[in-house]
Amino acid sequence: MRISKDTRLCMSLAGRPGNFGTRFHNALYEELGLDYLYKAFTTSDLRGAIGGVRALGIRGCAVSMPFKEACIAYVDELDPSAAVIGSVNTIVNEDGYLRAYNTDYIAVSKLLSDVPTDSTFSLRGSGGMAKAVASALRDAGFLSGTILARNEGAGRALAEACGYTWRPDLDPAGADLLVNVTPIGMTGGPEADDLAFPPEIIERAQTVLDVVALPPETPLIRHARTLGKRVITGAEVAVLQALEQFVLYTGLRPTDEQVARAAALARG
Amino acid sequence: MRISKDTRLCMSLAGRPGNFGTRFHNALYEELGLDYLYKAFTTSDLRGAIGGVRALGIRGCAVSMPFKEACIAYVDELDPSAAVIGSVNTIVNEDGYLRAYNTDYIAVSKLLSDVPTDSTFSLRGSGGMAKAVASALRDAGFLSGTILARNEGAGRALAEACGYTWRPDLDPAGADLLVNVTPIGMTGGPEADDLAFPPEIIERAQTVLDVVALPPETPLIRHARTLGKRVITGAEVAVLQALEQFVLYTGLRPTDEQVARAAALARG
Repeated sequence: MRISKDTRLCMSLAGRPGNFGTRFHNALYEELGLDYLYKAFTTSDLRGAIGGVRALGIRGCAVSMPFKEACIAYVDELDPSAAVIGSVNTIVNEDGYLRAYNTDYIAVSKLLSDVPTDSTFSLRGSGGMAKAVASALRDAGFLSGTILARNEGAGRALAEACGYTWRPDLDPAGADLLVNVTPIGMTGGPEADDLAFPPEIIERAQTVLDVVALPPETPLIRHARTLGKRVITGAEVAVLQALEQFVLYTGLRPTDEQVARAAALARG
Repeated sequence: MRISKDTRLCMSLAGRPGNFGTRFHNALYEELGLDYLYKAFTTSDLRGAIGGVRALGIRGCAVSMPFKEACIAYVDELDPSAAVIGSVNTIVNEDGYLRAYNTDYIAVSKLLSDVPTDSTFSLRGSGGMAKAVASALRDAGFLSGTILARNEGAGRALAEACGYTWRPDLDPAGADLLVNVTPIGMTGGPEADDLAFPPEIIERAQTVLDVVALPPETPLIRHARTLGKRVITGAEVAVLQALEQFVLYTGLRPTDEQVARAAALARG
């Protein structure tokens, strides 16, 4: 990579920056021969950081926890993907005009596009990502589902906002589509070895979506795969949302093979 | 170069960014195996840009025309090198605290260090860089010299600030040290082929310093070299001031050979 004054910079802002985005985007820039550069940052001054994106002409900025809602105050416009959930994970800088997107919402919408919308679903979780997924389900036209959340306030609010039902515990009848948007099954977490849904519920489902990206195969995904269910992994969500950022920043859509290579490098 | 979340970014801000700094610093990072990255930027919002340096934890920022004086309002402290001339070309970010330096002043001071201070000098020019050079001469203890400038206001002010004499035209007696701080001899300029001092004055001098860095050998430098005079070129000033920035940013001082290789790469 040869950096010059004309090299365009993209970046990320996160409370605890990781390396996935930096590696994924830089791998694709190299693969496609683009004069771009990607670098992760953190900040204790979000206003100053977003002001810097604007003033320095930084082309794009990924936004992670804990800045996804707070950054809304500093951008110029919300794309519908961010407006529907009130949460931003991507800022695109067009000559100093900042438009904010949520590519988690875009990615989940795409990954669910061939799941029949008359499927019932059970979504576990009520945080920011749960909001993105529930909104994607609603906007895709899924008619009937439950939001499963111990936190009644957040769970009810999310269910009502999307026209679904809140439940504090699992419906024993199960659902066609199971969605985990909690940290259950996440590497290093207290429930790393747990299944986000019980085996008999997984058995009754057709499709399982887990947004946990690490490990690439959570206990839930492994179990569902064993049973021959259609699975959508958190790793797929992570790669597709990063790809949608790449497309927004560069205007180019790499091939599936190029994306797969970049994702493999990014995980390495 | 492998960029990660831990890679430190240094940058430059200029009205018209060049590639010298980007190439020079990145070459030295690679040579020394440092996890740093350097990138040139421009801005139409200096306050926002410097705020971004602070908020994003960008380690260092070179400052060029037209921002060298305006940026003083946005830093926390002026090093004496910047304070003595009221002009900044380098900002170092220490955990959000911005200290500003002028490495042109530092570089010129070093390059003049073995010129006897009882030498008389004639300095042609009265702009920002002339201020840096005249201040360096004063602070090195040069006793007697003239500031040669058509602009009487700027010329007189500079001469008085440094305790020297202003002259609108050349002293036919000449001087031991000749210093050109005008664009005479600069590639692409209207006086690219001209000598900044007449041949008979060059003949009488011992040392010639030309701050014009392009071409590396100006007509003045070429002529002085032909006559066997000691010469200090603008290219040497440019490299040394960039090296002093590198030392401020990284705390490391490369060898002369490493600097020479990086400078050659940067010019290429």
